[in-house]
Amino acid sequence: MRDDISEEELERQRALYGPFTQSVRDLLDAVIRTEVDDDEVRAVQAEVELLTQRLRKQQLDGPYGVRFSASGRGRPWGNPVVGLRNAAAPPVEVERDPSGRAWASFHLGAAFEGPPGLVHGGMAAMILDQMLGEAAGAGGKPGMTGTLTLRYRRGTPLGDLRAEAWIDRTEGIKTWARGQLMDAEGVTVEAEGLFILPKWARERLARTDGSPSYFE
Amino acid sequence: MRDDISEEELERQRALYGPFTQSVRDLLDAVIRTEVDDDEVRAVQAEVELLTQRLRKQQLDGPYGVRFSASGRGRPWGNPVVGLRNAAAPPVEVERDPSGRAWASFHLGAAFEGPPGLVHGGMAAMILDQMLGEAAGAGGKPGMTGTLTLRYRRGTPLGDLRAEAWIDRTEGIKTWARGQLMDAEGVTVEAEGLFILPKWARERLARTDGSPSYFE
Repeated sequence: MRDDISEEELERQRALYGPFTQSVRDLLDAVIRTEVDDDEVRAVQAEVELLTQRLRKQQLDGPYGVRFSASGRGRPWGNPVVGLRNAAAPPVEVERDPSGRAWASFHLGAAFEGPPGLVHGGMAAMILDQMLGEAAGAGGKPGMTGTLTLRYRRGTPLGDLRAEAWIDRTEGIKTWARGQLMDAEGVTVEAEGLFILPKWARERLARTDGSPSYFE
Repeated sequence: MRDDISEEELERQRALYGPFTQSVRDLLDAVIRTEVDDDEVRAVQAEVELLTQRLRKQQLDGPYGVRFSASGRGRPWGNPVVGLRNAAAPPVEVERDPSGRAWASFHLGAAFEGPPGLVHGGMAAMILDQMLGEAAGAGGKPGMTGTLTLRYRRGTPLGDLRAEAWIDRTEGIKTWARGQLMDAEGVTVEAEGLFILPKWARERLARTDGSPSYFE
């Protein structure tokens, strides 16, 4: 969706929603780890419900979607990996290079645990799916995931991590990308994926200038 | 971790934390979708921060881990797919059969969006990773993900979904499982994975009776 907001408005929204979402992310971590007594849990729950009511007084009818500002910058703010307004996202702040590379450093805490002390294998898959898609988009070859293969070399410890991805090769509407998740000791998970530009997106791209990295 | 709580205590905790986490899940959805004015967003943020402080007055030092009650039932309550105390989890409530099958029906809303209106491809991968692991565990063959391959047949719409998984074959410490994600129209994503029982878990299992479905 193209809402054509200005760069100033974009920055205003970032400055408002970024810290707000971070505060809810902290709450989410505390909900997993708290050991306060039952009455206090119930009291906090009642307060949370009141806050939700306040936020819902005026809200979007459905999900956030991906919105585009006047400059063409996409805002996938509901995205569970990179979304600025999604408190379930780490969030992963992706850096990108037009050669078709993407990389990011981030921290995964209690909300991303699978086996004790380790990152959920599926969370590693979700982050790598996003990173491979970001690399494809950065290289002007956005696509939806067609296939994705993960190889888990060892458990990924919760904590400070890094992920990187790059375009391996392209062939028409198909882009193959590869990537890896790493801790301080090296690679923990490797990924390879095929990204395909769907027909509806090809038709939309044909009507616009440039190559947006996300779908509208 | 084995905390050996009784069935009564387990039910008490479920009744307390289940609804509490659900209230935070609703808040998370509202944070993505709200359109209330900036002052109200800031006011709600301040309240959220106070609630987090209250919960953190007494809390676990680290992540939740997987705790086991006296009956041997595992509680992976921080898990981002099935965790009762993780507001980022849908949550997926898995049903299981000792023949090595697992299935679940669940709803994915605004917090799980990738392309507009569609489930994030990586979220589909995360759920299927969990389901395949659940099938392996249900069949007495718990393991950590070794490889995982996803085939995306079409976009998965946000909304009511179902996933199922089953053991395909086993060979010593290796278990191959398959599964699929479905909407009302049929299969959207297919998965295949290899699950391997790690050495440290084999040593622990040798010291216990039965076959826990999750690692301690």
